[in-house]
Amino acid sequence: GTGYTGVELIRLLLGHPQAELCAVTSRSDDGRALSELFPNLSRHTDLCFVKPDAAVLADCDVVFFATPHAVAMHDVPTFIARGQKVIDLSADYRIQDVALWERWYGVSHVSPQLIEQAVYGLPEVNRSAITDAQLVACPGCYPTAVQLGFLPLLAPLLIDPQSLTASAVSGVSGAGRQAKLPNLYGEVSENFRAYGVQGHRHLPEIEQGLSVAAGQPIEVTFVPHLAPMSRGIHATLFAALTDDACNLDLQTHFEQTYADEPCVDVLAQGQLPETRSVSGLNQCQLSVSVPAGRRTVVVTVVEDNLVKGAAGQAVQCMNIMLGHDEMLGLSGVALLP
Amino acid sequence: GTGYTGVELIRLLLGHPQAELCAVTSRSDDGRALSELFPNLSRHTDLCFVKPDAAVLADCDVVFFATPHAVAMHDVPTFIARGQKVIDLSADYRIQDVALWERWYGVSHVSPQLIEQAVYGLPEVNRSAITDAQLVACPGCYPTAVQLGFLPLLAPLLIDPQSLTASAVSGVSGAGRQAKLPNLYGEVSENFRAYGVQGHRHLPEIEQGLSVAAGQPIEVTFVPHLAPMSRGIHATLFAALTDDACNLDLQTHFEQTYADEPCVDVLAQGQLPETRSVSGLNQCQLSVSVPAGRRTVVVTVVEDNLVKGAAGQAVQCMNIMLGHDEMLGLSGVALLP
Amino acid sequence: GTGYTGVELIRLLLGHPQAELCAVTSRSDDGRALSELFPNLSRHTDLCFVKPDAAVLADCDVVFFATPHAVAMHDVPTFIARGQKVIDLSADYRIQDVALWERWYGVSHVSPQLIEQAVYGLPEVNRSAITDAQLVACPGCYPTAVQLGFLPLLAPLLIDPQSLTASAVSGVSGAGRQAKLPNLYGEVSENFRAYGVQGHRHLPEIEQGLSVAAGQPIEVTFVPHLAPMSRGIHATLFAALTDDACNLDLQTHFEQTYADEPCVDVLAQGQLPETRSVSGLNQCQLSVSVPAGRRTVVVTVVEDNLVKGAAGQAVQCMNIMLGHDEMLGLSGVALLP
Amino acid sequence: GTGYTGVELIRLLLGHPQAELCAVTSRSDDGRALSELFPNLSRHTDLCFVKPDAAVLADCDVVFFATPHAVAMHDVPTFIARGQKVIDLSADYRIQDVALWERWYGVSHVSPQLIEQAVYGLPEVNRSAITDAQLVACPGCYPTAVQLGFLPLLAPLLIDPQSLTASAVSGVSGAGRQAKLPNLYGEVSENFRAYGVQGHRHLPEIEQGLSVAAGQPIEVTFVPHLAPMSRGIHATLFAALTDDACNLDLQTHFEQTYADEPCVDVLAQGQLPETRSVSGLNQCQLSVSVPAGRRTVVVTVVEDNLVKGAAGQAVQCMNIMLGHDEMLGLSGVALLP
Repeated sequence: GTGYTGVELIRLLLGHPQAELCAVTSRSDDGRALSELFPNLSRHTDLCFVKPDAAVLADCDVVFFATPHAVAMHDVPTFIARGQKVIDLSADYRIQDVALWERWYGVSHVSPQLIEQAVYGLPEVNRSAITDAQLVACPGCYPTAVQLGFLPLLAPLLIDPQSLTASAVSGVSGAGRQAKLPNLYGEVSENFRAYGVQGHRHLPEIEQGLSVAAGQPIEVTFVPHLAPMSRGIHATLFAALTDDACNLDLQTHFEQTYADEPCVDVLAQGQLPETRSVSGLNQCQLSVSVPAGRRTVVVTVVEDNLVKGAAGQAVQCMNIMLGHDEMLGLSGVALLP
Repeated sequence: GTGYTGVELIRLLLGHPQAELCAVTSRSDDGRALSELFPNLSRHTDLCFVKPDAAVLADCDVVFFATPHAVAMHDVPTFIARGQKVIDLSADYRIQDVALWERWYGVSHVSPQLIEQAVYGLPEVNRSAITDAQLVACPGCYPTAVQLGFLPLLAPLLIDPQSLTASAVSGVSGAGRQAKLPNLYGEVSENFRAYGVQGHRHLPEIEQGLSVAAGQPIEVTFVPHLAPMSRGIHATLFAALTDDACNLDLQTHFEQTYADEPCVDVLAQGQLPETRSVSGLNQCQLSVSVPAGRRTVVVTVVEDNLVKGAAGQAVQCMNIMLGHDEMLGLSGVALLP
Repeated sequence: GTGYTGVELIRLLLGHPQAELCAVTSRSDDGRALSELFPNLSRHTDLCFVKPDAAVLADCDVVFFATPHAVAMHDVPTFIARGQKVIDLSADYRIQDVALWERWYGVSHVSPQLIEQAVYGLPEVNRSAITDAQLVACPGCYPTAVQLGFLPLLAPLLIDPQSLTASAVSGVSGAGRQAKLPNLYGEVSENFRAYGVQGHRHLPEIEQGLSVAAGQPIEVTFVPHLAPMSRGIHATLFAALTDDACNLDLQTHFEQTYADEPCVDVLAQGQLPETRSVSGLNQCQLSVSVPAGRRTVVVTVVEDNLVKGAAGQAVQCMNIMLGHDEMLGLSGVALLP
Repeated sequence: GTGYTGVELIRLLLGHPQAELCAVTSRSDDGRALSELFPNLSRHTDLCFVKPDAAVLADCDVVFFATPHAVAMHDVPTFIARGQKVIDLSADYRIQDVALWERWYGVSHVSPQLIEQAVYGLPEVNRSAITDAQLVACPGCYPTAVQLGFLPLLAPLLIDPQSLTASAVSGVSGAGRQAKLPNLYGEVSENFRAYGVQGHRHLPEIEQGLSVAAGQPIEVTFVPHLAPMSRGIHATLFAALTDDACNLDLQTHFEQTYADEPCVDVLAQGQLPETRSVSGLNQCQLSVSVPAGRRTVVVTVVEDNLVKGAAGQAVQCMNIMLGHDEMLGLSGVALLP
């Protein structure tokens, strides 16, 4: 609970009408008041951090993991065995191919037996499976944005499966609340750079999701970037349209695809999303266009990396798992400016 | 409704369980959807801007003015005559001394007869008067912060009345959403400067409020500054303690003064407020200290200039005027980061 | 001289050992001291803005235009007829196809007869032509970055000419120093968005340059974005490698291509450029990679939009035209942070 | 050489026509190229960090310390004994009262015998002493700004010596390039806060300098703040004028005081300084005014904390010590924006 995803999850649960925050764990800050670390929580909770210990969490209906990767895989089996529901915001159960996961994350998985039963927590794809899930693996921030943007183009296949390109940009909170040099204000402000060009851990997750949707292997060229802002993901997606798709009304196709989705807004033709419109919200906004009437489709997608890209999506999954209205505790209007 | 204060007021009223937003006026954007100007309102309202016209507002219980100065004074008399309640976020009815107001604002007041009945909308000072008010003049952003910080020191008088100094800092949204050169990103980013040293319009308002509280004329040296951020006011207040006050426990005195105030948090000894903790909230946080045990008291105060410094305080006044819980529609947890 | 490009050009010329700044024109600020508008010039020049008037510029060896588009085309013929050298930083003489220019810029060209003799001022491509030019059309900011990144892949053709994609990001100074709403701090800060997806004026310029280099028509999918920063352009370029190119050492190829270029740094394998490294400098830094060893090449390029993307490149062209060392007055180390 | 002050000093020395950078030391980055840590130095130097070792520095005419506090005091005696000149940018030799220094810095001084011979490196006060100094203790960033602003008011004494108040604001680079949580982008952006109200280490240094100038003990109420920007210090200074001073033309007095100072600009009446005007420059800009014609004088001062507040002042001292023109290698025009 001491990271940016953690405090965002706490913020959302404190405002959720059907949730009671029982315990928040931290090894490093055991005993300190939440509001001491996070002054924005002052007046809203008297809880103190407790040591991570399965016992103190025994009475929780739902246990969230907002831990670094390769932590949840050690503790989740205990909660599953007890019959508790688990929502893991880390990457531990996202990738079905254990070997692939181990290659990208550089460790051996200690509870691979749970991977198959873990449901990938993207409600727009897996809503009914989430309803019955005991273990949900919440998608990463980039994978949420990239998948929501590409999915309408994959089934039926409207694009050349070899041509998918995702140029995505994140605010620095995506890198966590760790005291690392590249995250300093003096390193991020008035600066823009790509990173992970040779391979980012979100790539196999993106390709897994898109391949499942397309029913065939999909490769993506994925380049993430860091922008001088705290929150927000913006993904600009490119693909070559098939001959048939060139004649399709993509605007209508996207609107129909997401017509019933409470978290996905397809903007009107000609409008382009901006990250701040969804800041603090469990919302994704996107636009689709075909520049100059040529053959390349461009989809631009925004989300708040900490909300629809992490904590908000986790609460959305919780709502689905517990039979609440899917958007309960997730409404609101973004600040402007 | 087209300025930053306006959109903030719209945001708060859309989320208020007892408010219905009837009409939002604009001369320049008549007919356009609110959500076209403000994408953060998309999905939350279908209203379009209408021409400012007393007729369309005839059915409103409360009429808010988030206009530039010297606009409300023309239209308010009509609503008052009709018996409607009016909350003016501009400066038109804040200063009881008309001549003083006219000198600072450079125009003749066209409805000076209403000034006396206007109640200065600072609930921490005027709560009971606001309850019965028909016309409330909401305080400016700097005056709210500076008064809340100095008030506990004035009655009884704990400081030398000649020694009050306020060094205050605002985010750029305080300058409005007008397309002016000094408000450009390229002019504000990575820059910090004072302005209005020779005289800022909030000075007579601050001195009026403090003088009333002290029961004697109070002068303040007030220097506002612009910081590279969108929201937030931080005021650092200095004054020379009287001999008696040097022996007083100021921490306890401040805590007692604000013990029952829902919008004012006195931080624990040693903690200092930061602007983002109250971003988007109708909250003021402050600390008091006497550096090095000398004779100068330092109070630091933060608020969101658009909320407790403007639209939130207006809604708080509305709640009081209508008999609602004072904080109705004003709760929430600030984003971090 | 009142825009961001103008003041940057003034900054560079004031520091140039062989340049004397004779006159800076402005219709709106005629008579005001340069240092009044731009406090950074205080102590460095006593010049005042003068009305744009060919007479006052009669003695200048070189006349720069840092005007909005469709201004230079009216005045340049006078200077050319007099035998003066002209460096136009606007778009008026960049596009050889007049009809194409008129379609994108929405006006009739009034001096089309000069277009053919205008030399496109990208020294890495046109150095010898610039040497003898009387009229230089300086490239736009995006076109400079995108061309320098793609050029090594075009002759010989190492990429599928149908596959070029440029996802580029600019700081807000690229939008100029005009008091427009979208350029306000409150609109730009903590925000990221694409714009011009349906067509940006720099697209025909980019395609013209790349087509000349490839010796065949090249189409590019070009999406520009606005990031919350004042300066800097970052371009992420994608293309599908040809079968032959897949076996090529692209790192060495890029290093050899730019080995003798004083303004283009090919970073070591594995390094990625960041915008601040070239802030204030007439430098372009780029990297090339083939993610995951697949078939898509990714080039990332940074420049300062106001320097190598505008004023610095103009001074570089001036140096070439006047026989000075190409980098005279253009050296220096960027600030960090 | 691995901190922000260090890289700034390297930047200035690389551009200095009479300086040759012989060696840059670092324990943690021994053997790495400077340009690996600091990409802005690429193409400008091939030096690698070396272990701190008096031997490798034996041939240097001048040795700079840009170390954390309580490091230089161990190594400086060796260089002094050898006859080398030393410029210490840390606090080790700034305070003449050793006990006072030890109280504020929490360690015992290991070379107190050198304190008396150390010259406080504020050229505007100590120019002639610096000329002959072997050991210069460069002022801190806040002390430079606060002293330059108050000094003209102290001799003759134009203000009540009990009334000095300094409300100062710094960019985050003042906190160094250390990977600490409060320096993260996510903690600094869109945020403003005071710190060190109960006591900041720069206070005794400020009071020492002002007391020497006034010839009597001077106390200051000093509150530093952190603003969301990388560079820059802005100090707003307040004091009560004496009866005599109320009739004085302070503008002229300030202009005369600093008439011959190459680094201090007194702005014209009515102008106020902004931090970016001196970004990257060894310059201080200030304004003086008496708001509303009352009795409180307000001085606003800006400097770049890393230049006139640190590395630039160190180079200025070096120039004076070596008999160069005082501003050699320190000229230039600030970027705008």
